[in-house]
Amino acid sequence: MVNTNVRVSLPAVCFVWQVAMIILFGVFVRYDKEADAHWSETKKEENITSNVENDFYYRYPSFQDVHVMIFVGFGFLMTFLKRYSFGGVGFNFLIAAFGLQWALLMQGWFHSLDPVTGYIYIGIENLINADFCVAGCLIAFGALLGKVSPVQLMVMTLFGVTLYAVEEYIILNLLHAIDAGGSMVIHIFGAYYGLTISWVLYRPNLHQSKRLHGSVYHSDVFAMIGTLFLWMYWPSFNSAICYHGDGQHRAAINTYLSLAASVLTTFAISSLSAKRGKLDMVHIQNATLAGGVAMGTAAEFMIQPYGALIVGFCCGIVSTFGYLVLTPFMEKCLKIQDTCGIHNLHAMPGVLGGVVGAITAATASNAVYSPEGLINTFDFQGNFATRSVTTQGAYQAAAMCVALIFGIGGGALVGLILRFPIWGDAEDDNCFDDEVYWELPEDEESIPPILEYNNHMVTKNPDM
Amino acid sequence: MVNTNVRVSLPAVCFVWQVAMIILFGVFVRYDKEADAHWSETKKEENITSNVENDFYYRYPSFQDVHVMIFVGFGFLMTFLKRYSFGGVGFNFLIAAFGLQWALLMQGWFHSLDPVTGYIYIGIENLINADFCVAGCLIAFGALLGKVSPVQLMVMTLFGVTLYAVEEYIILNLLHAIDAGGSMVIHIFGAYYGLTISWVLYRPNLHQSKRLHGSVYHSDVFAMIGTLFLWMYWPSFNSAICYHGDGQHRAAINTYLSLAASVLTTFAISSLSAKRGKLDMVHIQNATLAGGVAMGTAAEFMIQPYGALIVGFCCGIVSTFGYLVLTPFMEKCLKIQDTCGIHNLHAMPGVLGGVVGAITAATASNAVYSPEGLINTFDFQGNFATRSVTTQGAYQAAAMCVALIFGIGGGALVGLILRFPIWGDAEDDNCFDDEVYWELPEDEESIPPILEYNNHMVTKNPDM
Amino acid sequence: MVNTNVRVSLPAVCFVWQVAMIILFGVFVRYDKEADAHWSETKKEENITSNVENDFYYRYPSFQDVHVMIFVGFGFLMTFLKRYSFGGVGFNFLIAAFGLQWALLMQGWFHSLDPVTGYIYIGIENLINADFCVAGCLIAFGALLGKVSPVQLMVMTLFGVTLYAVEEYIILNLLHAIDAGGSMVIHIFGAYYGLTISWVLYRPNLHQSKRLHGSVYHSDVFAMIGTLFLWMYWPSFNSAICYHGDGQHRAAINTYLSLAASVLTTFAISSLSAKRGKLDMVHIQNATLAGGVAMGTAAEFMIQPYGALIVGFCCGIVSTFGYLVLTPFMEKCLKIQDTCGIHNLHAMPGVLGGVVGAITAATASNAVYSPEGLINTFDFQGNFATRSVTTQGAYQAAAMCVALIFGIGGGALVGLILRFPIWGDAEDDNCFDDEVYWELPEDEESIPPILEYNNHMVTKNPDM
Repeated sequence: MVNTNVRVSLPAVCFVWQVAMIILFGVFVRYDKEADAHWSETKKEENITSNVENDFYYRYPSFQDVHVMIFVGFGFLMTFLKRYSFGGVGFNFLIAAFGLQWALLMQGWFHSLDPVTGYIYIGIENLINADFCVAGCLIAFGALLGKVSPVQLMVMTLFGVTLYAVEEYIILNLLHAIDAGGSMVIHIFGAYYGLTISWVLYRPNLHQSKRLHGSVYHSDVFAMIGTLFLWMYWPSFNSAICYHGDGQHRAAINTYLSLAASVLTTFAISSLSAKRGKLDMVHIQNATLAGGVAMGTAAEFMIQPYGALIVGFCCGIVSTFGYLVLTPFMEKCLKIQDTCGIHNLHAMPGVLGGVVGAITAATASNAVYSPEGLINTFDFQGNFATRSVTTQGAYQAAAMCVALIFGIGGGALVGLILRFPIWGDAEDDNCFDDEVYWELPEDEESIPPILEYNNHMVTKNPDM
Repeated sequence: MVNTNVRVSLPAVCFVWQVAMIILFGVFVRYDKEADAHWSETKKEENITSNVENDFYYRYPSFQDVHVMIFVGFGFLMTFLKRYSFGGVGFNFLIAAFGLQWALLMQGWFHSLDPVTGYIYIGIENLINADFCVAGCLIAFGALLGKVSPVQLMVMTLFGVTLYAVEEYIILNLLHAIDAGGSMVIHIFGAYYGLTISWVLYRPNLHQSKRLHGSVYHSDVFAMIGTLFLWMYWPSFNSAICYHGDGQHRAAINTYLSLAASVLTTFAISSLSAKRGKLDMVHIQNATLAGGVAMGTAAEFMIQPYGALIVGFCCGIVSTFGYLVLTPFMEKCLKIQDTCGIHNLHAMPGVLGGVVGAITAATASNAVYSPEGLINTFDFQGNFATRSVTTQGAYQAAAMCVALIFGIGGGALVGLILRFPIWGDAEDDNCFDDEVYWELPEDEESIPPILEYNNHMVTKNPDM
Repeated sequence: MVNTNVRVSLPAVCFVWQVAMIILFGVFVRYDKEADAHWSETKKEENITSNVENDFYYRYPSFQDVHVMIFVGFGFLMTFLKRYSFGGVGFNFLIAAFGLQWALLMQGWFHSLDPVTGYIYIGIENLINADFCVAGCLIAFGALLGKVSPVQLMVMTLFGVTLYAVEEYIILNLLHAIDAGGSMVIHIFGAYYGLTISWVLYRPNLHQSKRLHGSVYHSDVFAMIGTLFLWMYWPSFNSAICYHGDGQHRAAINTYLSLAASVLTTFAISSLSAKRGKLDMVHIQNATLAGGVAMGTAAEFMIQPYGALIVGFCCGIVSTFGYLVLTPFMEKCLKIQDTCGIHNLHAMPGVLGGVVGAITAATASNAVYSPEGLINTFDFQGNFATRSVTTQGAYQAAAMCVALIFGIGGGALVGLILRFPIWGDAEDDNCFDDEVYWELPEDEESIPPILEYNNHMVTKNPDM
């Protein structure tokens, strides 16, 4: 009999890690100059004439949209299971709230550490990047949904954020690849990290939980809340950390178009694949988002509106086929149980996005971008001032491999750690069930007043 | 026996139209100068000192709010039926994603086509206008909800967007009427377009689907998500394309106030009309929004805060009475079946908004607006530099007629097209049923674990 | 037999008060200079070079986030009861829509009245402050949820807004305390106002409604929508009216961190307190927000990131313990029935926030803030130019007492008024029931098509 009691382990992990965060923030983290009360002095020193030049006003609306995607988007997308809605939205909440703190530190050490003072200075862009980092772990959570304990999720997040920060440093700083919306850094890494963990934690008798491995009518509607907030705000996600001006503007347009196209091809394939052309909610909830994933790398490139539509067109098809063909195949033959189908929504579109990014980078030209625009878009400055666009394309391709290696390697390592029988995960016949980790309310059927008020219902106008 | 199989027609329509979009975008659509990588050159040429002057920063937050209204607002408002929530939110998603692409082209040809290069240049304002255009079709969808097939909806959207773009060009460019929030262009057109189609597609035996023509408790709560996101973000809708500065500021204030007032009168009439003063969710979900519709035309006018309150006051009353009296009358006597009651929420408040706009335009003065403010608000420049405010009022009234004619005429035409027995729509006894076009999950009652975990429930503290 | 018929009283209150609002707005309220059509003249007079300097662009995104918190956040948080979701989200909608109008007037008279013209000039900051004022009343509503009639709620809001405006004037203007996110002005006042009313309206036989005093599975998921939108947008709430630049920036960062920390300690205590470590949705829905409440006063202070984490850490613990220990104790021993547990979510974290604010104010220094930063943050100008930080700390503490006194005193007064047997509130055995004030749809179980489509279900692929 497996012990799913987390009464000691979960509070212990939460407390110890939160205390560690407080200590580490005390030692390392301060406000950056745009958030510090010395800002009025900074303005004078740097000849900034208006408060509106504070990065807060450029990025805060995008930050809030990204924040909604992380907590409501990912959270509600994972409420689709009939009896795991609490776990879907609740554990998403827990690991995101922890992950963003750890991400501020890890990313800070790699990107924002001042060598003189030894402090990490944080501002609005750090908050966005922390949310991005958390997204990688929430993608991985999608593969594990319903099969692991909250303590395992916390461990998965601790290591996931750590690996992400290293991988991100290699890709963005050492390889100097561009990945504004994170097709590679976030989606490829997150998806293969989660899939590998799921492979290591393979549950041979998961079919014993089959009764709970599906949706009910209203849980599918709840999941659509997640889908739509992800879909609507994805232009903010891909443009949030682009450079000011045309970069953010173009990234939003490209993502908007790509997403629209993937909706149509998702509906098409979903209908084509079913008897009588009936649509499947699983496809609509997930594959419609693939266009956003795949525009991550090339978001701010001059891919042109029709280029964005083509990307979305292909992704909707690939992703829906994944749900139809690959997910059953992977479960049966590769022993990878992928609850939310993150391979279809994140891994494949992420790879497609990385490829699109590499090609469009390699074919960039002064004519299309203008000389200054090319420098801005690809950040050809400092050590990279002389890099050619073809070289850039090659480094983009190399970045994909780095994300893949970190995802699979990290996932294998963390999967092994999570196999220890100490984490309180449920047995194979008890997965996808909120009853294991949540106090559940009594059931709807047992409400007495339903009968009572039905007696009153005769007073209601029957024509309304 | 009617054939509701859309396995060929729906994928065919989605694929062919999406491919057509890609080709047309390839031929016609490029980024505008604020989204193009040449922006750094543009800044120098036009002496723009800061990236914050990029229109993206003026309009992106409003755009995102409008985007939420289109997909979550309209989508969830249409989940109120007990077994058509998938269709409500899902088909809304499909036709909006298609419609916005077609709208970018149609509106682009009329408004943003560069005669020299032959290109349509798109930026953030085009995305907002595309979302606006789609709103017109989604309003029409409200009248047809549950009675048409997704293929019919795609056809309805194709023609709807086309008609909208022409009507909008006549109203905004030829008549030079002001309609920032679209009381006329969006709401009058969309509502009469949908109502006329519904009239042409009259189903004499719709009462056979009566068992499904109503809500259940939780579907009404889902619909409130739609209501509230529409309500909260309507100030952004009406101010999204107003001119920078006081125009956007004033439009947001006016809409905020008008909406607040219509909530109170909606509650009042709803309570007044029912036995024991009980409130009706249909009214609360819909009539509370009428104040936003009616402030569409006059949003940026100097109508003063109390003027906005009066508009909202009247609309809440008119709209709720519509649900109580007009919808049953229209169904019985005029043979117009209006599922969501769009006549009450969009048509009547839209007409009221058009009238308010005409009157307030005709009575505008230099004293109230300041000379420069008058020119800004009514765009009295170029060919229209010498137009008087009374003339403007007359053109505003003429614009209402144009919207009405396009709605009714277009609706009659499209209704006839949709009557062909080739579109896969359901029979009269099978309307409002997701089962026709969606793979439905097994039902909630049949979840075995409910019994199982109830046994565990004895462990729960009964006092919580 | 109590009469719960509100058919006369509710419409009468709505109509009369809305008409009063129109008249008072007509006499008193106009657009401020940034929303008035004379803005182009104002720009010239004040040498403003860009429209982006209009306060609208600094504050509108924050305003919209706050607006979502008021209507969706508070509204859906109160849908957790199994049969009071209509009342939770619907009455929240009604009283917020009324309250914000009355707040614009009341706050306007105290803060924005021009002594020369006799007009209140409103702009975007007034809308934010009106939403803030409404938040105080919605907090109070949380204690009364399910036990009062909509007419009582309207009366509660009328007085609540009035008291709030006076209290706010004393705290912000006379005492010159800082309270950007309203730990004191909003949360302490609102919570004790509601708790005192609930105490006066004590229902000795409320246990007779016990069958409805709990959640069902899906109502808990609905409530999570409210929780998450409150949680995500709280950084906007606390930063919305901070001064431009680093003030808003810092307030957002502090609140973001404080909220993240309270999530972890809430999960920890919730798990620690239950058999087998099972989490309780009541805690997750509420106590996770305590970090936002407690950062209200010190939001823009230089509390440093680790300081914000410590505040959130403590609040999550205190608030969850409140739900475990204090709420049952208060109901049993103090005869205070607090439906939503606002004492745990608003009162205690509010007090903690006030204390943190007083201490951090008293220990502020030129070194940490820079001289100009100190003046900006604490607004040491005009009559207050010579105030020391220690004096400021004392005034912060005094402000807490003012909020407390207004809450308790006002609540006692209003509670007595609401005890008159004329308001249509339900009997003790009929609380928490939407049936009293709402036309309810027929119940889910009685949908015939469920049986029907289950017959079709055999066509569905059973592996999906």
